Amino acid sequence: MSEELVVSVKEMVTSEAFGIWYLIGAALVFFMQAGFAMVETGFTRAKNAGNIIMKNLMDFCIGTVMFIIVGYGLLCGTDMGGFAGKVDYSLFTGYGGFSFSGFVFNLVFCATAATIVSGAMAERTKFISYCIYSAVISAVIYPIEAHWIWGGGWLVQLGFHDFAGSCAIHMVGGIAALIGAKMLGPRIGKFDTDKDGKVTKVKAIPGHSLTIGALGCFILWFGWYGFNGAAATDGAQLGSIFLTTTVAPAVATVVCMIFTWIKYGKPDVSMCLNASLAGLVGVTAGCDVVNCAGAAVIGVVSGLLVPFGIWFLDYVLHIDDPVGAVAVHMLNGIWGTLAVGLLADPTVPSYAIADANGTQLAGLFYGGGVRLLGLQALAVLTVGLWTAVLITVTYLIIRKVFGLRVTPHEEVVGLDIEEHGLASSYSGFLMAVDTESYLAAGEPVPVEKAVELTYEPTSHESFGQSKFSQVSIICRQSRFENLKQALADIGVEGLTTTQVLGSGKLSKATSYYRGSPVETSLVPKVKVDCVVCKVPVKEVVETARKALYTGNVGDGKIFVYNVRDVVRVRTGEIGYDALQDSV
Amino acid sequence: MSEELVVSVKEMVTSEAFGIWYLIGAALVFFMQAGFAMVETGFTRAKNAGNIIMKNLMDFCIGTVMFIIVGYGLLCGTDMGGFAGKVDYSLFTGYGGFSFSGFVFNLVFCATAATIVSGAMAERTKFISYCIYSAVISAVIYPIEAHWIWGGGWLVQLGFHDFAGSCAIHMVGGIAALIGAKMLGPRIGKFDTDKDGKVTKVKAIPGHSLTIGALGCFILWFGWYGFNGAAATDGAQLGSIFLTTTVAPAVATVVCMIFTWIKYGKPDVSMCLNASLAGLVGVTAGCDVVNCAGAAVIGVVSGLLVPFGIWFLDYVLHIDDPVGAVAVHMLNGIWGTLAVGLLADPTVPSYAIADANGTQLAGLFYGGGVRLLGLQALAVLTVGLWTAVLITVTYLIIRKVFGLRVTPHEEVVGLDIEEHGLASSYSGFLMAVDTESYLAAGEPVPVEKAVELTYEPTSHESFGQSKFSQVSIICRQSRFENLKQALADIGVEGLTTTQVLGSGKLSKATSYYRGSPVETSLVPKVKVDCVVCKVPVKEVVETARKALYTGNVGDGKIFVYNVRDVVRVRTGEIGYDALQDSV
Amino acid sequence: MSEELVVSVKEMVTSEAFGIWYLIGAALVFFMQAGFAMVETGFTRAKNAGNIIMKNLMDFCIGTVMFIIVGYGLLCGTDMGGFAGKVDYSLFTGYGGFSFSGFVFNLVFCATAATIVSGAMAERTKFISYCIYSAVISAVIYPIEAHWIWGGGWLVQLGFHDFAGSCAIHMVGGIAALIGAKMLGPRIGKFDTDKDGKVTKVKAIPGHSLTIGALGCFILWFGWYGFNGAAATDGAQLGSIFLTTTVAPAVATVVCMIFTWIKYGKPDVSMCLNASLAGLVGVTAGCDVVNCAGAAVIGVVSGLLVPFGIWFLDYVLHIDDPVGAVAVHMLNGIWGTLAVGLLADPTVPSYAIADANGTQLAGLFYGGGVRLLGLQALAVLTVGLWTAVLITVTYLIIRKVFGLRVTPHEEVVGLDIEEHGLASSYSGFLMAVDTESYLAAGEPVPVEKAVELTYEPTSHESFGQSKFSQVSIICRQSRFENLKQALADIGVEGLTTTQVLGSGKLSKATSYYRGSPVETSLVPKVKVDCVVCKVPVKEVVETARKALYTGNVGDGKIFVYNVRDVVRVRTGEIGYDALQDSV
Repeated sequence: MSEELVVSVKEMVTSEAFGIWYLIGAALVFFMQAGFAMVETGFTRAKNAGNIIMKNLMDFCIGTVMFIIVGYGLLCGTDMGGFAGKVDYSLFTGYGGFSFSGFVFNLVFCATAATIVSGAMAERTKFISYCIYSAVISAVIYPIEAHWIWGGGWLVQLGFHDFAGSCAIHMVGGIAALIGAKMLGPRIGKFDTDKDGKVTKVKAIPGHSLTIGALGCFILWFGWYGFNGAAATDGAQLGSIFLTTTVAPAVATVVCMIFTWIKYGKPDVSMCLNASLAGLVGVTAGCDVVNCAGAAVIGVVSGLLVPFGIWFLDYVLHIDDPVGAVAVHMLNGIWGTLAVGLLADPTVPSYAIADANGTQLAGLFYGGGVRLLGLQALAVLTVGLWTAVLITVTYLIIRKVFGLRVTPHEEVVGLDIEEHGLASSYSGFLMAVDTESYLAAGEPVPVEKAVELTYEPTSHESFGQSKFSQVSIICRQSRFENLKQALADIGVEGLTTTQVLGSGKLSKATSYYRGSPVETSLVPKVKVDCVVCKVPVKEVVETARKALYTGNVGDGKIFVYNVRDVVRVRTGEIGYDALQDSV
Repeated sequence: MSEELVVSVKEMVTSEAFGIWYLIGAALVFFMQAGFAMVETGFTRAKNAGNIIMKNLMDFCIGTVMFIIVGYGLLCGTDMGGFAGKVDYSLFTGYGGFSFSGFVFNLVFCATAATIVSGAMAERTKFISYCIYSAVISAVIYPIEAHWIWGGGWLVQLGFHDFAGSCAIHMVGGIAALIGAKMLGPRIGKFDTDKDGKVTKVKAIPGHSLTIGALGCFILWFGWYGFNGAAATDGAQLGSIFLTTTVAPAVATVVCMIFTWIKYGKPDVSMCLNASLAGLVGVTAGCDVVNCAGAAVIGVVSGLLVPFGIWFLDYVLHIDDPVGAVAVHMLNGIWGTLAVGLLADPTVPSYAIADANGTQLAGLFYGGGVRLLGLQALAVLTVGLWTAVLITVTYLIIRKVFGLRVTPHEEVVGLDIEEHGLASSYSGFLMAVDTESYLAAGEPVPVEKAVELTYEPTSHESFGQSKFSQVSIICRQSRFENLKQALADIGVEGLTTTQVLGSGKLSKATSYYRGSPVETSLVPKVKVDCVVCKVPVKEVVETARKALYTGNVGDGKIFVYNVRDVVRVRTGEIGYDALQDSV
Repeated sequence: MSEELVVSVKEMVTSEAFGIWYLIGAALVFFMQAGFAMVETGFTRAKNAGNIIMKNLMDFCIGTVMFIIVGYGLLCGTDMGGFAGKVDYSLFTGYGGFSFSGFVFNLVFCATAATIVSGAMAERTKFISYCIYSAVISAVIYPIEAHWIWGGGWLVQLGFHDFAGSCAIHMVGGIAALIGAKMLGPRIGKFDTDKDGKVTKVKAIPGHSLTIGALGCFILWFGWYGFNGAAATDGAQLGSIFLTTTVAPAVATVVCMIFTWIKYGKPDVSMCLNASLAGLVGVTAGCDVVNCAGAAVIGVVSGLLVPFGIWFLDYVLHIDDPVGAVAVHMLNGIWGTLAVGLLADPTVPSYAIADANGTQLAGLFYGGGVRLLGLQALAVLTVGLWTAVLITVTYLIIRKVFGLRVTPHEEVVGLDIEEHGLASSYSGFLMAVDTESYLAAGEPVPVEKAVELTYEPTSHESFGQSKFSQVSIICRQSRFENLKQALADIGVEGLTTTQVLGSGKLSKATSYYRGSPVETSLVPKVKVDCVVCKVPVKEVVETARKALYTGNVGDGKIFVYNVRDVVRVRTGEIGYDALQDSV
């Protein structure tokens, strides 16, 4: 074969084969939606699982609609002054000659940007508000900055390089996440504050399924081979991308494991899972231009950025990011974008970073000086600013019109039932009461409602009375922490709590499952038993009543029993002495 | 390169590259088995999880065996009069020259058809019967109608178009599902009926893991890119298929969200998940011939068909389809097949619908008249009829020989333990008692067994008696609803129920896990506490005994205690007054 | 086109298209990590879920680092005398010309070998020890034997055939698993032994999520199309590989279902899931050289090897392999390797088994005599020996330096909290107490600590005393089985057990979640109620105290109440008679 023929044939082969791979890559990127959904669901609480899934599903679906209407044009349309593409509707008017693959590819990337936000704002954002800002990201914010980077806009004209979106997608999603989480405020129970609102304690709110979260991470890593690789155009480049996309997260995870092992005494599972994602985000911008050593360096930094970022948000900024979206996507998005300016190695196959004059640019450590690094920093600043301004305006308008955050009651009870009428995403499983949230939510009873207590022991009380009395209180789960504190205040400790079911009808709006009403004739209640001796029963009953009173049906009942005797196992103390401590 | 050379090379490239893609697509379709398994498991109850997984696993495995033996030949063998292929065994006799890819591809599609049925018939079908009808679908029903459509049979000869199986797979699976669900009858507890058997109330039976169900939906959507795309033969066509396969489900999901938000006041999570699948089913037949607008139209209708279909089955037909298989697959399979006749647009790349004479056919809205629509309708009718008749005969024979449905006892206790000896698919998790099913299952005790009650308070009862008595009843979970109703009848309300464990040995057949016996020395029981005042204790004990009596070991015990006093929190009422209402 | 041109073009096409497929295959193999993680997590207990996930994540990540440092060179470097490759660092020194794809491909395969071990050693291995031996496997053990088989070493020079690793990966992983499980000893509670240490009973320890386990199996099967197919070099070969990779597991699963149905009376779900994997392992070595009939034969044997292997380990060797790794990977790895010697059929496309002289070798049943079979057996022996020796030395050194196994206390409480400070992988779900493990773990209290019992009923006890007394004991979950046995010894049966929460602070080291401390003010306890009549209350109290005493805070309390009366439901017996049996 003549040299020329080889080139021609090779071109045809490459175009055809990589055309298919481009779409396979897009399918893998779509599958990352499953990964995000599982990570975000697993790392949050069971009472919000359905809501989080719904958000992840809807941001892709709403995003698709918005992308058709306006986003695709802004991103891929004819460049208008480097700022945005021209919106046209050739998708409808000239379907036969449309760039189908390009549309699908850009759409699935767009959906990723929107999805990142949901994690940081999980467990407290109104569903309608989520739908709206998710739509705005897909329609305007992402397409325009992505046009700058990938659509022929001003940044790519200058020579900026972001192969698969550390900046265009992850940093943008991460910034929107940070601002959103800040504006929403933390979840109830995440921080203890003193009277001036100063944070005195950071508390963990563990996710409800690490297994599902881990599955999500594995799915994301798997999908990332498509995310980083889809746009490759020859075999060596694709191979190199797969290599860097493997090395960076692996190194990040190992580094994070070692770091958390040293810092917390034990290797932290959920942070290591985050670290894998962080390494992937970090290598995304430069996956095609860094070599193996570069990927390893990116991984080392990413592996440290995760525990740092989580600590920084929790302990310094006091911003509550349930799934670590800011640490993973924003910090590593920025790091990955800058890393190109440091680590881009022109010997990597199909290397293609050049400025407007066609002069090749390289990373600082590979003899390229600060030129490329400067460009990368410029992009971080401008794209960051663009995102910050637009998303802030968006949130402010939404907050004004709909409100961003659900009510404390909705948050404590759970978004599944409140936002979607879904009684439980895990029907049939017994769940522990999330009593701490209830307490933190407060909702104090107005004092004037506090009915005068009228407890006078009925005449028969004297009959059969013993030295010890058991007071059994059946009450709402939501008042349990109130009760516990009130009893502690009068010296009653050593409570035994049991989850029970009371007969009755739920007074709240019926929940629906697939259009049929869900019947609940058994209402979850808490039964609190305490045995008292010195403290008068009357005082216990009064105190309990005050702590439990809301004025609504279902406040509960209090029963009093005789107890013959009490023994403490450890000391062998009997009677009164046995009661002077917690169980 | 000469024009001719370009064509030749292109052909080689396409054949090689799309040959690989064809198999990747098949692998993606295989992965949809995981999606189906997760959707069906997540949307049903935990006590049947192992059984549903086993069914999904076995229909692929049994289907493979049947497809080797007879199905593949009927589908792909030499056409015999347009009706079926000739069964030969070149798979064994001429392996070297066999069409490996075609076999794998057709096999994974075949498995999908069989799998659809299991969802609608979940939670009550005998496992052996499931294996048999699943085998019949894979061996005969599907291969023959698929031969009509894809194997060179009479429908394809006429010009009927079903690119990836809205009709051949989804409608067929959906019809088998509908007939099966009808013949089985609803799950115990799904419908309340009056004495004439008329349905008076439709009740929800929520699935046990929406998260797993959602994961399944994402996996299905991901796999669908292979399902719809695998048979594509050039890049533009594949791109267009990916586009339509993305737009239709996205639009369907958005439409369903809006519709359920309006209809039920809140956006319904599980229906939206179904709607994504519905959009995918709807676009399956025409994914290669409709344009973006067409895909959107298909999506709009699919998004409405899901809530309509679920409502129609629940409230009109009173057929119980736990996972919405009929609404998703049958209705949208029919809709998708007909939609080709409306929306097929000849400007779509690689458009190829033509009748026997080679005349191109187009959709009604694209100037094609009703010709294609008529053909599509003809296929719906004939394939539907074929499926309905054969599957009905199959079910009838199975019902006669093995029985289709498990016993009420097996259904209430769960198919995991009864059909597979699997004590629990979620060992270690505490599960709520499914008391309603027990009640609905009935299993009334023969009256003659009702031993004469002999409760005469023992002499010491008068001692220490107080005005209030607590009766604590420890009983079988399965009799709880009976007990509750019986106590309500004599005016005892305000029960407090606790899940407890009684010591003892399970009397039923031992369960095995991986060949080793599972020991259970603690038997789940329910403890019901009620405090009574006016109602005589004797009457409570008698009533409870009658309600609980089965004559078997483990019927339970009743304890009576003194209660000193009772206070109602809300009103401050004390003693008798405090008891006149539910907690 | 000239014949010569066709060949040239075809070569280019194949190289390009299969180059991409090679990487897609590698991505699928990576995804198998998710499959392994889910299978191993699902088939073990919830208290170790985080630990198992962490191990699966880390073996890939640590493995990557080790593979870069030394493994890749040993496997793929210039052959040194047939034993190992020469380690060089062209990955760092000559990145531009490096074989990226080959590196990634071999890396993901390497990780699989290491991952297999974790299942068999789950729930009791120290995390640090796991990290080390996993690193050794990835760095030395696997790369050298894989060099023999795939890297140009002595076995491949002789003509040994193992296409995708039945021997190189699965048998090696399985042998390391078997030896590890043997050296660790069984999990607490798996086997009952008599005084001489002889096993008297094999007990099941069911996994905590069959659904997750099944998902893992489906993911593995899906990924296996990449595992077996990635190295294919033409379309017909790839098609045939897909076919055999589908038929073998399907047949294995059907055979296992039938076998377990016959043997245990019911089709076993978890063994059938194992059987699918077994069929996949079995066909891995010969997936490119066996025909459909051969694949079916492999499947039949694999389907029987699973229940046999599990039984053999449980009942004969008394080795505890929680997930069946030995049965699935070792036995079927050996079987699959030998099966090539029996079933390799030269008519399969792209057949390529030849000895050093280029003479084609075939399976025994296809006219090849015992030559190939002998070679396969030689590889099983030598590779097996290599693995056994090196891994044994590795384990011995680790055991000496760090210890292989966690303490009984750590094992009973769970590796999540003890090894990772993770309070629960399923926060919010109520879990059943794993009382049997506690009992089996023993940890008896030193007798001298048993404080002299001083229970003398306080004076008021005589007041209000009735004939029946209820003794309610609130105690540690870990002492429950002790208590139960002690009470049974004095004739107290019919206990009712409730899971309750006691107020207090956990005295053990605080757990962290994502760097924030997890607060737990409610401690899970067990409440045991028994009503006694003849047995003196004093004896019950004394016995309970002895059984519960550990001398630490939190040993519990005992309360005594009067009971007015007792009725047994079944018989109508009242009072004393009603108590003479379990509930």
